[in-house]
Amino acid sequence: MEKEKSKERIILGIDPGTAVMGYGLVKEVNKKSELVSLGIVKLDHLDDHPLKLKRIFEKTVALIDEYHPDCLAIEAPFYGKNIQVMLKLGRAQGVAMAAALSRGLPIFEYSPRKIKQSITGNGNATKEQVAAMLQTLLKFTETPQFLDATDGLAVALCHCFQRTSTSGVGSKSYSGWASFVKDNQKRVANPLAILKGKSA
Amino acid sequence: MEKEKSKERIILGIDPGTAVMGYGLVKEVNKKSELVSLGIVKLDHLDDHPLKLKRIFEKTVALIDEYHPDCLAIEAPFYGKNIQVMLKLGRAQGVAMAAALSRGLPIFEYSPRKIKQSITGNGNATKEQVAAMLQTLLKFTETPQFLDATDGLAVALCHCFQRTSTSGVGSKSYSGWASFVKDNQKRVANPLAILKGKSA
Repeated sequence: MEKEKSKERIILGIDPGTAVMGYGLVKEVNKKSELVSLGIVKLDHLDDHPLKLKRIFEKTVALIDEYHPDCLAIEAPFYGKNIQVMLKLGRAQGVAMAAALSRGLPIFEYSPRKIKQSITGNGNATKEQVAAMLQTLLKFTETPQFLDATDGLAVALCHCFQRTSTSGVGSKSYSGWASFVKDNQKRVANPLAILKGKSA
Repeated sequence: MEKEKSKERIILGIDPGTAVMGYGLVKEVNKKSELVSLGIVKLDHLDDHPLKLKRIFEKTVALIDEYHPDCLAIEAPFYGKNIQVMLKLGRAQGVAMAAALSRGLPIFEYSPRKIKQSITGNGNATKEQVAAMLQTLLKFTETPQFLDATDGLAVALCHCFQRTSTSGVGSKSYSGWASFVKDNQKRVANPLAILKGKSA
């Protein structure tokens, strides 16, 4: 019996903010998605903006080195109310993306609306609705202490759902990376080892 | 003859844009600044935004590994006209900063106005005026083909001029890094190769 290795992949989802960074890892095997890990990194106790960026960078690199995901999916608002906020948000996104770039991972970004739409069918769903749907879809029962953790998970699962079309409304995919993914199937981590120790 | 090595440092200056990234390296020995290198990286031929970010990240890491600067000085507008532009600019800044963070370098950022003020005495100076002053101060005669290269050099020299005060108007320095630098004197590049001196 032959197995199609290419049907298996791990997606790291990150929601980089300036107060909290949420992350989630989803493994997809033969079109079925499973929770690998989710969590948050608190940043609001760090005064210095560069210290926050450093933390985001280090955590993202650590997650990549631990779980060997096939790609990074990132929640990326494309607009906001405030220029200052967008600059800081852009920096937070930039360092998370740089962490992926430093490890040769392709990056996919999705707007918050697109993520909500993918998970719940409603682009205006609340965080709580997204979290509840994630628990149903990924069959986990723990209520995450912080909803931000589910934001990272949501973008990872959202990317799972984009199997064929990577150019949906509100999403951006990067064709330049497609060939990289194809050429790097070996990077798919063995997920069996990971699954046992599921962290919260 | 003995030299005080601790008076010697190399500053990498970067102006990360989305069309062009300018960089410059300045060596400061006993309060005298010397040009080490300057250049640009063209980005506008790259369609994908992440490819641009990748290029900025790789080039910044390469410059750090080649010249072993003591810190990164970055030109960072704190406001702009357009939310979209600020997000992209934030990302470009973020990856350049991540490159420095990945190598343990402290980061200092300066507003364009502060840089112009430091170099020319006039916060509203034109690019050409800044470039001309840089040529005088650093004693180089080649006219840079692209003025963007002098932007990177300008922020490096601007940082040289902030010797004691790092909290001038329009600049931001990160005290969190001060102790890092103090604790990491060994990371200061061995200047023997460059200068025949050694760091304390």
